[in-house]
Parts: sequence; C-alpha cells; structure tokens
Amino acid sequence: MNIIRRDKSLRRPRTIAHLSFFAVGNIELTRLVLLRPFPKQARKVSLPKSRKAAVARRGSVPVRAVGIEQEISIDEAPLTLLREGGEDDADSMRARFEKMIRAAQDEIVAAVEELDGQKFQEDAWTRPGGGGGISRVLQDGNVFEKAGVNVSVVYGQMPPEAYRAATGEGGGGKDMIPFFAAGISSVMHPKNPMAPTVHFNYRYFETDAPEGAEGAPRAWWFGGGTDLTPSYIFNDDAAHFHGTLKDVCDKHDEEFYPRFKEWADDYFIIKHRMNERRGIGGVFFDDMNDRPQEELLAFATDMAGAVVPAYVPLVAKHVDDEYTEQQREWQQMRRGRYVEFNLVYDRGTTFGLRTGGRIESILMSLPLTARWQYDMHPEEGSREADALDAFRNPRTWVA
Amino acid sequence: MNIIRRDKSLRRPRTIAHLSFFAVGNIELTRLVLLRPFPKQARKVSLPKSRKAAVARRGSVPVRAVGIEQEISIDEAPLTLLREGGEDDADSMRARFEKMIRAAQDEIVAAVEELDGQKFQEDAWTRPGGGGGISRVLQDGNVFEKAGVNVSVVYGQMPPEAYRAATGEGGGGKDMIPFFAAGISSVMHPKNPMAPTVHFNYRYFETDAPEGAEGAPRAWWFGGGTDLTPSYIFNDDAAHFHGTLKDVCDKHDEEFYPRFKEWADDYFIIKHRMNERRGIGGVFFDDMNDRPQEELLAFATDMAGAVVPAYVPLVAKHVDDEYTEQQREWQQMRRGRYVEFNLVYDRGTTFGLRTGGRIESILMSLPLTARWQYDMHPEEGSREADALDAFRNPRTWVA
Repeated sequence: MNIIRRDKSLRRPRTIAHLSFFAVGNIELTRLVLLRPFPKQARKVSLPKSRKAAVARRGSVPVRAVGIEQEISIDEAPLTLLREGGEDDADSMRARFEKMIRAAQDEIVAAVEELDGQKFQEDAWTRPGGGGGISRVLQDGNVFEKAGVNVSVVYGQMPPEAYRAATGEGGGGKDMIPFFAAGISSVMHPKNPMAPTVHFNYRYFETDAPEGAEGAPRAWWFGGGTDLTPSYIFNDDAAHFHGTLKDVCDKHDEEFYPRFKEWADDYFIIKHRMNERRGIGGVFFDDMNDRPQEELLAFATDMAGAVVPAYVPLVAKHVDDEYTEQQREWQQMRRGRYVEFNLVYDRGTTFGLRTGGRIESILMSLPLTARWQYDMHPEEGSREADALDAFRNPRTWVA
Repeated sequence: MNIIRRDKSLRRPRTIAHLSFFAVGNIELTRLVLLRPFPKQARKVSLPKSRKAAVARRGSVPVRAVGIEQEISIDEAPLTLLREGGEDDADSMRARFEKMIRAAQDEIVAAVEELDGQKFQEDAWTRPGGGGGISRVLQDGNVFEKAGVNVSVVYGQMPPEAYRAATGEGGGGKDMIPFFAAGISSVMHPKNPMAPTVHFNYRYFETDAPEGAEGAPRAWWFGGGTDLTPSYIFNDDAAHFHGTLKDVCDKHDEEFYPRFKEWADDYFIIKHRMNERRGIGGVFFDDMNDRPQEELLAFATDMAGAVVPAYVPLVAKHVDDEYTEQQREWQQMRRGRYVEFNLVYDRGTTFGLRTGGRIESILMSLPLTARWQYDMHPEEGSREADALDAFRNPRTWVA
C-alpha cells in the first residue's frame, strides 16, 4: 500500500479543490462534468518566481492536477465509510446505498475469485474530509489479465456556484453546500481473446439545498450502467448479456432497456475512430430522480446483482478456447481502443485525472497490456471485420 | 492505404471546422490551443430527431469529432505539397520550410533504416482544401518497435475570431483569413529497454492580416523541440543528448538552451502521476517570432539536423544490451506513461483527436505495446527508482 502524496508548494483554486472530492476512487459522477470542471480560476495557480518568468515568456500557464487532500491508506476496510455518529442512520439512503455496493463488491469478487482461482488484493483508504474507499484488484490471474472492483463513499462541502451549475437552481447564497457521493465501479479484462471485458458502475449522489433557498428540496440522483467489450462477436453471448440486463430492466420499467441501451451506444463512442464504440454496449443511465428513491435503489440493486449472471458465464464458456497469435494481437489492439476511450472520453476517468483522485483506483480500469499497430484494417469478411462492424453499427441483440 | 471517411449525417460548427485543418498529420501547433479549440458553438451540432430526444432526456450534447474534409490517399509523395502556380515561389518561407522538413525526413529515415535494416512504409495524402502530408512508419523492425516520421503542409482559411484570439489583435472584419502551417513530427520507440525513445517536432505557422486591419503585419511564428524518453538512466547518454542539443542552441543564442530545457521540463509533465515527466526532456519552444525569419529558419534547420547525431548513437550503443523480463516490463510500463501523456496532455495529439485529423498519423506516436500494472512502485535504490527520480526531479545534464 502506498500513500498518495501531494506537492504542497502549489496552491489550488477553490472550485477545483472542492470538486476533487468527487473523483475519488473513480466514481463516475457524470453529472459533475457540468460543475465547471475546468474553471477559469484554475489558471490562477500561484507559481514560484522562476516559473512565473517562464510562463510570462511563453504566455500560458500549465495547470497542474494536485490532490487537495491526502488519502490515508488503512490496514483494513472499516465496517462503514460513513461518518460515525453522524446523521447517517442505518435507514438513510446513504447507509443503504453503501451497504448495497459493498455487498455487490463482495458478491462479484467472490464469483470472479472462484472462476479464476486467484485472490483479489485489497487496498482501503479514508479521507480526513470525509469518506473513503476500498479497491480490490486481481492482476495476472489464471483467467483474468486484470480485474478491479472499487467502492467509494465520499462527502464534503461543495461551493454554491457548483451547486447552481449542477442543479440549474437560483439563489445567491454563499455558504458551502454539503454533498455525498457513493459508487461501485469495475472493469474486468480476461486473458483469452474469446472472452469479453466487462465494465459496470452504479452510483448515488446527494446535495443539501443551499441555505436560504426557500423550500428547495435536497437534490439527489442515481446513475450507472453495465457494458460488454468483446474482441470477437458471439451472437449467443451478446444475446445472453443484453437479455439478462433487459430482464432486470423490464421488471422495473419496460421503457428502461431500449432507452438505456441506446444511451450506452451513444456514450461508449471513440469519436476519433470514426465513431467506433469500444464494444457492444449494454445499458447506461444518469440523473435518475423521476421516481421514488426506493424504486431507484431497488433498480440499482438488481442491476448490480445482474453482473454475475450476465457476465461470468461468458468468461467460463471461453476460458479454454484455443486462439492464434493473430487473434491475441487483435485483442491487444482492442485493448488499445479501451485505453483511448477511457483516457480521452470517459467522464469519470478524465475528471478524476484532472482533479487528483487516487490514481491507482482511477486507472485500475486500464488493461494490463495493449497494442497500437499502424494503419491496421481487418480483412473483408474476417471475424475481426465483423466485430468492427458491430462496434461501428450498434446491433439489436434482444427483441 | 486507406481513405479516411466521414459521417456525412453530422454537420460541424464553423469554428471547429476550420480549425480542423490545423491538426492534420499531427503538426503540434501548440499556439492553436489558444484559438478556442472547444468553442461553445461546438455544442450547436445539428442532430437527427431521435438523438435530439435522447439528448433532451439526459441534458447534455455529445460533441463528435468528424473530419470536415476527406484526406485523399495518393500513390506517391508529390514534389511539393504547396499550391502549384500559387503565391509560393521557391524563395518564400513556406517553400523553404517545406524543403527543410522534407530533407530532414529523408535524412532521419535513412539513418534509422540503416540502423534497423528494415524499410519505412510511406503513406501520402492531399486535402482538396489545400496541402497534404507524408507519413513514414517502420513497425516491428529489427531494432525499432515502432518509428514514425510525418511531414505535413496545410493551408486554408481561418475565421476572423480565431485570428483575433490567436494574435490578440483587434479589428472587426468578417472575412476569413488565410493561414499556412507546416511541420515535421516524429516518435521512435526502440525494442531494447536500454535504448531510449525520442520525439521531435519542428513547425512554422503563418496567417495573413485580416482585411481592414491597417498596417497589421502578416503574423508568423516558429516552434518545436526534441526530447528523450529512456526507461533507464545512463548519465553519459543523457549528457550526449542534451549536450548535442545545447551545442546547436549555443550556436544561435546562449540563452536558448537553458530556457528551452526548462520549457521542456515544464511541458512533458504527466500531472496525474504526481508531476512525473514522461522522460528526461530536451528542448521545447513555441511562438518564436522575436528575430528575423532567416535566423529562426536556420535555428529550426540546425535543430532538425541535430536529431540524428543526438539520438541514433544512443540506440546503436544499446541495441544488443542484455535485459531481463522484469526490465522489459518496466519499459512497457513507461510506454504506458507515454500513452497517458500523449492522449491526455499533448496539445498536438489532443487537438488532433478533437478536430478530426488523419488518425493514423496522429496516433502514430503511440508505442506498439504498453502495460499498466496496478500499484507498481520500484524498490528503493533500484535502477527503476533512479529513473523515476529523474522523471520527477529534472536533472542538469550539461553545465
């Protein structure tokens, strides 16, 4: 375990400072991108004199991402990452959401350990300002190249202008506004090129109303998704994965699956690769607060619970498939695309990189190895060309 | 060879459209980042109805990077990429700069081919709007994992607001302003972990004054740099590399090396890795127009000419070095850092990705293979720890 250090010689502007809480542990709080992630003030970094001169010479100020607060590595995951003795009783949504994601982490890790035969490594940390996280990573296993399952629970104070930007609400208050964010986030890359990669993330977010905003309710929302990234297309696998997600969605609302499937197809796009998707999608949703919290918690719980039945059988099925060196290279190139998506577009990752969260947790999603081959184009009619076509033109996997 | 296609169903906003010319072929026109690369108008993308509905649901508009103009692949590099019969006579700076970078491309490619024993592949293209490029790539050679040397010469029209943003000049003209940009850009990754990676880029930029801007001169500037990314530190190598660059700088101005060395140390920073540099730097400069064009052309020419003597001997020296599997893994992790820098911070790359240049040329700089290992920290006192220290705390290599 290691402790993230920060360069104390650099001061950070307030807006970024407080936003940095959000990015801890790769919680993909996509809504937060609205909170002026690159505010103009970020350029007002106080620089030592020699750097000031250098900057004056070339007319631009490099903005450095420096964590505002140290994560503190702890030896064992605590029973709860919530504030002890605080307002979060066991019936609160905060406490119930934490309980749900930690149970999901246990369940998914157990299923993957059983399949792989190797154990996850656990790193736990807390933040003095509030909250903490638990990262579990399995690296270079028997079946998985790299698999990580993070939970984090963070809270603190956000500036009122960030609150206004996020909610669109008025009010001229100057007081900091309490917020709370909790999530589970995971990426698992198997070794065999015939076995697909999965990613999922479920999150819950809350802010208090600013003081003086008459009658304004506490703001909250749910978000999340589960998506599949195969290197080769197996129609049965795709139908099983999407079908399992659809069944869970349908239990809650028959409009969910078609809407969230399209949302995933729109989100996991690598724009600079002629709008290739990184995989064959799944479901993705955000800003959900249009029905009772109970219903949305039940939905998020069922979706997290669907990860094992939707995904693990696909890896088990292909774990001993034979493959050629060329197929391994194609998988490695698709891993390269995964890196491109995560570093360039993924909101949770890019936001985390800019705001100084725990870097090993944020980049846990990257594959163990990847490949970039110049000007590689699959042969027409090949299995690779079929996969690329599925990434470029999203297909209907279940009716 | 392949032709870059574009999705004709999407219209792009004007500002982005014209800026997209700049990014062709990974010319690192860092100045252009000032030209509002992510203008608010970029969100006014016209979407098909179904997407509009989806966007309304989730309250954000994904901006797609789509090339505004097709590159057209051509069978052979033309004698000049300049407009034929245009204003660019052989004595113009445009023509002389193109001649210089194409000679440098020939010279560097020849030296690397001689060392490697394998030939570069050449791809040439033109753009109907003006200009074109020549990419040369050697992949999976005997000595080099991947080596690319690009030249491109692009010109067209830029919107007046972009001109004003770039130059700080006033004037309310509404006419498009002609611009010209030419550059050479290269990254070479050797296989042996004891041999370093090099990157260099030299570029020349011009705009006409807007109509009606009384007496305003034509704006132009030079920029560029050469930097080294070893996996292991060899003091002699570092001194040779920096010393060769310093000798060339000193010939022109003794203030250049210290100033441009510091600039490189400030530029090649991976902020989210606690301000690790990707390597041990070299020189970097931009916006140079404070002395006669003749002098700056001579300087850029000498700097491009210094690449072979500064770099090639270092690879030749280590080509047969023995190494362990663990050392190869360290190199692969440093390659991962190279990917992180290029995709997240490098201005030429990030600008190119967002504006739809020729993607294979832009991402030619990525290594053939890379690695991300969770929570890896070199042992204290190891050669890896020494390298990491050099990346975190830039050293003085030549007095």
